[in-house]
Amino acid sequence: MSSPSRTAAFPPCPEDPCTMLDRIESPVREHAAGSLDPLFSPAAIAVLGASADPLKIGGRPIKFLKAHGYAGTILPVNPRGGEVQGLPALRSVGELPWGVDHAVVALPASAVLDAAQACADRGVKAMTVFSAGFAEVGPEGAAMQARLSALARESGMRIIGPNCMGVMNFRVGLIASFAFMVDLGLPRLGRTALVSQSGAFGGQALVMARRRGLPLGAWVTTGNECDVEMADCLAHFARDDETDVIMGYMEGCRSPDRLVHALALARERGKRVVMVKAGSSDVGRAAAQSHTGALAGNDRVFDSLFRQYGVHRADSIESFFDAAYAAGSGKRIVDGRVGVFTVSGGVGVLMADVAEQEGLDMAPLPQPAQDELRAMLPLAAVRNPVDGTAQIWSDMELFRRFLRTMLREGRYEAVVFFLTAMPYSPPLQQPLAEIFADLRREFPEPAMVLSMLAPQALQDQLADQGYLLIEDASRAIRALSALRALSRPSPGPADLASLPRVPRFPALEAANEHAAKEILARVGIPVLPERAVADLDAACAAASELDYPVALKVLSQDIVHKSEAGGVALDIADEAALREAWAAMRARVAQAAPRARIEGMLVAPMAPPGVEMILGVQRDPVFGPVVMVGMGGIYAELLDDVSLRIAPVDPEGAMNMVRELKAFPLLDGARGRPRADLDALVRAIVRLSVFAHQHADRIESIDINPFRVFEAGRGAAALDAVLLTREPEDGGRA
Amino acid sequence: MSSPSRTAAFPPCPEDPCTMLDRIESPVREHAAGSLDPLFSPAAIAVLGASADPLKIGGRPIKFLKAHGYAGTILPVNPRGGEVQGLPALRSVGELPWGVDHAVVALPASAVLDAAQACADRGVKAMTVFSAGFAEVGPEGAAMQARLSALARESGMRIIGPNCMGVMNFRVGLIASFAFMVDLGLPRLGRTALVSQSGAFGGQALVMARRRGLPLGAWVTTGNECDVEMADCLAHFARDDETDVIMGYMEGCRSPDRLVHALALARERGKRVVMVKAGSSDVGRAAAQSHTGALAGNDRVFDSLFRQYGVHRADSIESFFDAAYAAGSGKRIVDGRVGVFTVSGGVGVLMADVAEQEGLDMAPLPQPAQDELRAMLPLAAVRNPVDGTAQIWSDMELFRRFLRTMLREGRYEAVVFFLTAMPYSPPLQQPLAEIFADLRREFPEPAMVLSMLAPQALQDQLADQGYLLIEDASRAIRALSALRALSRPSPGPADLASLPRVPRFPALEAANEHAAKEILARVGIPVLPERAVADLDAACAAASELDYPVALKVLSQDIVHKSEAGGVALDIADEAALREAWAAMRARVAQAAPRARIEGMLVAPMAPPGVEMILGVQRDPVFGPVVMVGMGGIYAELLDDVSLRIAPVDPEGAMNMVRELKAFPLLDGARGRPRADLDALVRAIVRLSVFAHQHADRIESIDINPFRVFEAGRGAAALDAVLLTREPEDGGRA
Repeated sequence: MSSPSRTAAFPPCPEDPCTMLDRIESPVREHAAGSLDPLFSPAAIAVLGASADPLKIGGRPIKFLKAHGYAGTILPVNPRGGEVQGLPALRSVGELPWGVDHAVVALPASAVLDAAQACADRGVKAMTVFSAGFAEVGPEGAAMQARLSALARESGMRIIGPNCMGVMNFRVGLIASFAFMVDLGLPRLGRTALVSQSGAFGGQALVMARRRGLPLGAWVTTGNECDVEMADCLAHFARDDETDVIMGYMEGCRSPDRLVHALALARERGKRVVMVKAGSSDVGRAAAQSHTGALAGNDRVFDSLFRQYGVHRADSIESFFDAAYAAGSGKRIVDGRVGVFTVSGGVGVLMADVAEQEGLDMAPLPQPAQDELRAMLPLAAVRNPVDGTAQIWSDMELFRRFLRTMLREGRYEAVVFFLTAMPYSPPLQQPLAEIFADLRREFPEPAMVLSMLAPQALQDQLADQGYLLIEDASRAIRALSALRALSRPSPGPADLASLPRVPRFPALEAANEHAAKEILARVGIPVLPERAVADLDAACAAASELDYPVALKVLSQDIVHKSEAGGVALDIADEAALREAWAAMRARVAQAAPRARIEGMLVAPMAPPGVEMILGVQRDPVFGPVVMVGMGGIYAELLDDVSLRIAPVDPEGAMNMVRELKAFPLLDGARGRPRADLDALVRAIVRLSVFAHQHADRIESIDINPFRVFEAGRGAAALDAVLLTREPEDGGRA
Repeated sequence: MSSPSRTAAFPPCPEDPCTMLDRIESPVREHAAGSLDPLFSPAAIAVLGASADPLKIGGRPIKFLKAHGYAGTILPVNPRGGEVQGLPALRSVGELPWGVDHAVVALPASAVLDAAQACADRGVKAMTVFSAGFAEVGPEGAAMQARLSALARESGMRIIGPNCMGVMNFRVGLIASFAFMVDLGLPRLGRTALVSQSGAFGGQALVMARRRGLPLGAWVTTGNECDVEMADCLAHFARDDETDVIMGYMEGCRSPDRLVHALALARERGKRVVMVKAGSSDVGRAAAQSHTGALAGNDRVFDSLFRQYGVHRADSIESFFDAAYAAGSGKRIVDGRVGVFTVSGGVGVLMADVAEQEGLDMAPLPQPAQDELRAMLPLAAVRNPVDGTAQIWSDMELFRRFLRTMLREGRYEAVVFFLTAMPYSPPLQQPLAEIFADLRREFPEPAMVLSMLAPQALQDQLADQGYLLIEDASRAIRALSALRALSRPSPGPADLASLPRVPRFPALEAANEHAAKEILARVGIPVLPERAVADLDAACAAASELDYPVALKVLSQDIVHKSEAGGVALDIADEAALREAWAAMRARVAQAAPRARIEGMLVAPMAPPGVEMILGVQRDPVFGPVVMVGMGGIYAELLDDVSLRIAPVDPEGAMNMVRELKAFPLLDGARGRPRADLDALVRAIVRLSVFAHQHADRIESIDINPFRVFEAGRGAAALDAVLLTREPEDGGRA
């Protein structure tokens, strides 16, 4: 057996374990650069590379600005001067008045830098660069883009793009874009802003919003993000009083601190944020990485970040639009009480199925209301879903009374009306329009969704009355589920004041089980009073001191899976058994891992029974240290039952993590089990997260497996632990 | 302690345990009634209650039949005679020529029975009854309907309805329906048949099929199903050479044997069946029950039935249409190799995410192909998803070469092209039409889906070329996943010849642990050699005989949860310990369950370690005995990890059940565990299922928990068992 335990490598305890509290920095940091107001609400807009041809990239913005009633000054810039689409053209940027708010650049890539410099020199406040040919085409382009970034940073002129489709603010007729989709018609005006990193998706979204009747207030694509990032746009709309809903199409995140800040701001201001963020699968992640060139990060970290700030994450383009559309209603669903009216029983059942999957509450109507409905229509289903059956179409006054009763007595937060294609029936259209208009007036509170096939005129009329129109019944229910997610309070940023004081280790090194546990102990994470020993006599002494029965474990950084190498013996009853176990283990380990450097053995008391958990820290390439908790054991691994958060995590956040576990009921005393010591678990998560946060530059990963949580009131203990550090000069496995 | 063990109640072993094999009846039974050909392809059709007003229910079928080119004879029947919509009317059914194929009944409910009798007397072969006012309105209507059923049964005249929207066979212009949606236009003609129990949904489906470009060959709604059930229609289309795809909208199942037969037939004939069946949630199930009046059955049984016969079950109306639409392409996806081309990286990633969720294989292009694509477009992502980026639009010949290379080298079974809204760009439309037409010609094999926003003309053109058009990218991937499910072989009916011989117990009674295990042992399900004893001396003798250590368990039909009542002691090492355990257990049980009748104790050897499973049988109200297997233990319960099948199950089916378990890897030797004795498990499932099937009339439930499966080669054993029987006159808990 080689040199004794590596406790010598244990880092010195800091003099004052409390000094570190002040260093806990909020991840919610505002980006220091200037406002985006000049970009979205310019008093004047210059178009560099202005073209007289309204089909060209340099011609379209001018055409669009004129056509959509932009009230500010349009300043075409073209070296040939003269008139451009009826407007006097300036020959150069130098001829611009000083301090123009917004300049659009439709020039070849090679001309962009000079133009940007000229604009900065002329006091231009913000610039949109359509031009492609930058980082997306290779290293030379990337170098040009870096200079553009530097220019933005140094001059304070905000630059959106390059390689983007531009900016639209429909409220002021600002169409600073060359997207030909504008020619297909604009969406209705509304209080939803759409931010897309992808220009291609932005174009698609414009068409979809119009087709689906989703009203937009603003639209922006951020392209290569040399300066203005998606996060900056999110922050802009979070501050914007004319925006209620923000839709974000995200491919990657360049500045996590700006993103976190934007989400925190949006949460604070009560904005509803709906995001699509691709990359949850392995293939997806690889593809995202190769596509954006940015590190994809662990997708679950995004998930947990979004949840923390109340962002609804959509998993398809369709549900992205459905959720935003429902969010735009301004309605709130908190308890999730949803009523369903149907004229086809089967679809009502289908909706009930989806509602249950989504955790919505299809609360039955009160009995008197059921009786009242049954009196009107004896064969109707009157519980919820309420099925009027085909009979209800035969008497539209009955139809009206029936629905009034359901709405009045159900007091639902949201109601879906599934009407099939019957509204196409000519004699029904007028009565339906009147009845639903009256219902909306009488019951202004609930969110109301019409799921039907109907002539466009009837659809428009009812949309104007405040109905949501979602043709597919299942999607209607899912949209309401999204609306509920957006209506509920979210935890928000960690409460820094509630975080415990955790010592700092100036020279953290990779640590074997014993050393790692000593670090954890100083951090305040409970461990058992175990002893690292170099020889059998020391082991016997340690065991006597700790009291039998004991466990014996091999100590080696080269052996990750001790049990599989025969390096664990439990329940050793007395010294004779210990001596036997010692010899047997040496033999087994020598055979299983002949080249492992054995640093000694650990003698530990046997831990009380409890629930086996895993605690850990992983370094996310985007967000830094992320703390993780999961159920231990083989089932949990198979089932991938883990929840995680960007460090640091406050006690409420840690408790939320634990509650998110599928197996939470096991901790909470399900099926007659004793309740586990959740307080001890939460404390350990919080302390581990603070430790990880404060050593973000050094920690590669921490793996506490198992972390055994005893019965309530009896605490918990890290039974094994591995700490890997980041700098390769540490050698070893770090 | 009361009377000794109830082994006396053990049923006698049948003389010949092998006689039962012949009694295993196939659940695949054909319905004996007559063909539906006269309904769908009548040479002549009579309309009872024919109206001259083409807006009335009795007028519409005549109008529709004339308008859509029905080539057979239309025979209006109206007591007033004269002309009806230009056709000579008969005054009564008696004036009909003998043996008319199909009569449509548009009369008040009160007149239907007489009309039906008259038709039967006149040799009419099939009848469609639109009329409402039968079982759906109450007991009187139900009585009328029962007489209609009897008439159908006795006369052999098939009756569809009452309370249905009728029948359409677009190939022969047969529109025997009053659905006003016909006026909105019919879907394109195709090889898909739609069968809906709901008329309301049928009407909606007609509109959706037309709008979504889903071509239909036939359409039928079955309404109250007094005679012709949905299953009969499924069987009809399973036999129909002009049908490839069958869409079924199911609310409940009246005749499980007919349904199973129809599905088996469809499978045998290679039809693709897509079903919507509502009722998976608790609320949904309750609603379905109240709606259809039929027992809802366990939704999972439907799931497993559908899987067994290769039916794809859709979970929303939208995915129902998407899956049927994809199925109609006739393309096959077996391995699941899917290629994705995108012009927006993020959506490509989103599609990769969905593909992974769905278990599709986004296989990367071979390296030389990647190199070739990269040579064409240096910044493209070339693995899969292949991202042409916005650059690809600048050179349509490059676009063509790029896609040709991807298709040629990728050899995908299916390809999705995500093109955003760019196809709206006028200069791109002609090149896109040409390029995609050429690609389809050059690569006729793979399923190809265009996910794009495009002008209708371009969409129609490409649909005609054999492209599937699915606007939403995620839905496009899910449709391909459905297509794969429909392309793969399904197990089909159990192979009756492979089923083991299992004894029949003529007088099966509810059985306590010991009696139940003795029955199981005779059925061929392994149990441990345990002894039921009435007193301590007998216990000691039994333990000596079995050899220590032993387990001691209380024997009482009144104690379901023995452990919780203190009625289990394990690992009893010797006689002293047994005496101690006996006394302690008596005391504990007396306290925990003072009123339980104690029938004795069980002494059993300790079982070897293994994986704890649950085996069971439940009686499904629709399908009869259903066999169930699940992982045991608390995790499994929390996670609801169970699979089930209608009994009997052959060995292949049993193995499929085991493989369906989420925790199957645990049995299969995951993470260095020993592989469990799957053969023993499969044998037990099969034998239990045959036993349950043969005693279907007697068994309420069987619960073997735990069923412990030892290491491979070492077998398995039922460690506890409860059998409940059905007939209340048995008394006790049965």
